Amino acid sequence: MPKNHSFEDGFNIREFETFEGNIRVHPDATIGRGSSIGQDTLILNAVLGTVNIGSNCIIGNYSMLEDNVTVGDGSKIWHFCHIRKDSEIGKNCILGDYVYIDSGVVIGNETKIQNYVPVYHGVEMEEGVFLGPNSLTTNDMLPRARTGQGNIQEQSDWKVSPTHISKDASIGAGAVLRPGITIGEKALIGAGAVVTKDVPAGAVVVGNPAKILRYVEGFEHK
Amino acid sequence: MPKNHSFEDGFNIREFETFEGNIRVHPDATIGRGSSIGQDTLILNAVLGTVNIGSNCIIGNYSMLEDNVTVGDGSKIWHFCHIRKDSEIGKNCILGDYVYIDSGVVIGNETKIQNYVPVYHGVEMEEGVFLGPNSLTTNDMLPRARTGQGNIQEQSDWKVSPTHISKDASIGAGAVLRPGITIGEKALIGAGAVVTKDVPAGAVVVGNPAKILRYVEGFEHK
Amino acid sequence: MPKNHSFEDGFNIREFETFEGNIRVHPDATIGRGSSIGQDTLILNAVLGTVNIGSNCIIGNYSMLEDNVTVGDGSKIWHFCHIRKDSEIGKNCILGDYVYIDSGVVIGNETKIQNYVPVYHGVEMEEGVFLGPNSLTTNDMLPRARTGQGNIQEQSDWKVSPTHISKDASIGAGAVLRPGITIGEKALIGAGAVVTKDVPAGAVVVGNPAKILRYVEGFEHK
Repeated sequence: MPKNHSFEDGFNIREFETFEGNIRVHPDATIGRGSSIGQDTLILNAVLGTVNIGSNCIIGNYSMLEDNVTVGDGSKIWHFCHIRKDSEIGKNCILGDYVYIDSGVVIGNETKIQNYVPVYHGVEMEEGVFLGPNSLTTNDMLPRARTGQGNIQEQSDWKVSPTHISKDASIGAGAVLRPGITIGEKALIGAGAVVTKDVPAGAVVVGNPAKILRYVEGFEHK
Repeated sequence: MPKNHSFEDGFNIREFETFEGNIRVHPDATIGRGSSIGQDTLILNAVLGTVNIGSNCIIGNYSMLEDNVTVGDGSKIWHFCHIRKDSEIGKNCILGDYVYIDSGVVIGNETKIQNYVPVYHGVEMEEGVFLGPNSLTTNDMLPRARTGQGNIQEQSDWKVSPTHISKDASIGAGAVLRPGITIGEKALIGAGAVVTKDVPAGAVVVGNPAKILRYVEGFEHK
Repeated sequence: MPKNHSFEDGFNIREFETFEGNIRVHPDATIGRGSSIGQDTLILNAVLGTVNIGSNCIIGNYSMLEDNVTVGDGSKIWHFCHIRKDSEIGKNCILGDYVYIDSGVVIGNETKIQNYVPVYHGVEMEEGVFLGPNSLTTNDMLPRARTGQGNIQEQSDWKVSPTHISKDASIGAGAVLRPGITIGEKALIGAGAVVTKDVPAGAVVVGNPAKILRYVEGFEHK
């Protein structure tokens, strides 16, 4: 039987610092100059540039928020997330672990983004959208690593095809959205579906390529 | 030709601390009060709540284990993992990088979970299961970000559909399991398959939706 | 209205250290003995074993490079990456966040690897390859967690089926490559495709299983 060492004495505990308005900050968090953080917000071991975080938020461990990021009141950004510059997270959102938000992306209120989801620039999301674990938005129809001249492609070498996700739509686990399409209001994209064209409001689509299976209640006759 | 700077003098090396029973702990690891760790276990730069780790284990860099997590003897949890409260990892398991184990999940002995795999609560796994990279378990048949009243959904707003994975089953890379299904013993789910219904013991399934291709040796006549 | 606390005084800023040749190193980075780093390279909060990094490189936050890793001039390895021992990254490559490069893998020049991509050993990649977000290479045809004797499988218990990706090929978001196949030069694998057999040079393939849709310009008559 193995002999366990017990760490009862509080080995290497690091205490949080509390600021006015009950803002608690992990001692290893790095916060940029000129940042502003609302009351009752909890900042774990994260790296923050110059940011504006609302009240009642949580920013998790090992997460990075770059310059000029805005996070609305009541939103939670969990662990291992990377929120790039100039992006804007609405109110009461929940971002799971390992979420990547590209530069300049705007996320509507009450959005729920599950683990391992990247949201690339050119993706527009209305309010109340659900992005299941590992679901994928894309923005480049013909992706290549290098140009015809053999140089690595820079952002100016390719064209963004914008994707639009309407309010209260739900994208299932592992589903992939091709660039340049629109997902209608309340549409339900099945787990693992590969969506290659526009999806009407309220449609339930499944398969590769995705096809309409039925409509959700309230959208039957549309 | 660029001139390289050589860091031969041991720049910024951090030495491990060794405790009785040859428990080695990274100097930046944080371990909660009342934790217990078995002999010959290695804790890298991780964040541990109040946990019970067996002997001959490894906990990697940038991994987090929340309160009341138990890890059996001989198990390795590599880097960037997040093991949530009250979950239980069996003996001799290997969890790769970026693995997410939800609250209360029980993982059987000799389980191998590859990179980027989330295991959500409601998923029951017997012993010897293999989860390929990016394979997905799910637990919500009709996921939505917010309720009919427009509020962000809390856990009480939706119903977990349990998934059961029987012993020695193997889920291929990027495969997706819809909620509420059972995967039989020794079944083999092909890479990229989208599994929408129960899979019998020993069946090999591929495609979207997944269909039975054949049976593995020993299960042909079942 | 919530009262925000302002962190204008430069709360917890950590300054970089600059070495000869304009090598800048984050104060929390750990660099192994005997490492060599080229001029104008930026090392953020990363953990490096004994490595050789070229000039004009960037190594991101929370990334790990194990012993004997080589990174060519001009390459960027962003955040949360894990580059395992004895692997070699070419020149002018871009590796996004959460990228996993297995032991001994060789990545050609001007390769672009997007977020959440694992490249396993046994995968051979020529120059100018594009791997879309969440695309998957695999190397084990019949993955199992444990042997017939009930022990966890070690590397010696299974056979690597090598995958070959030819120059300037592009693998779409969420696509999965079965083990043991060859992707031809300039081939384009559609988003979400599951590739089960060899793909000729210049072919565009989509679906599960992937089928040839057309050929890219210059490869029509091949």
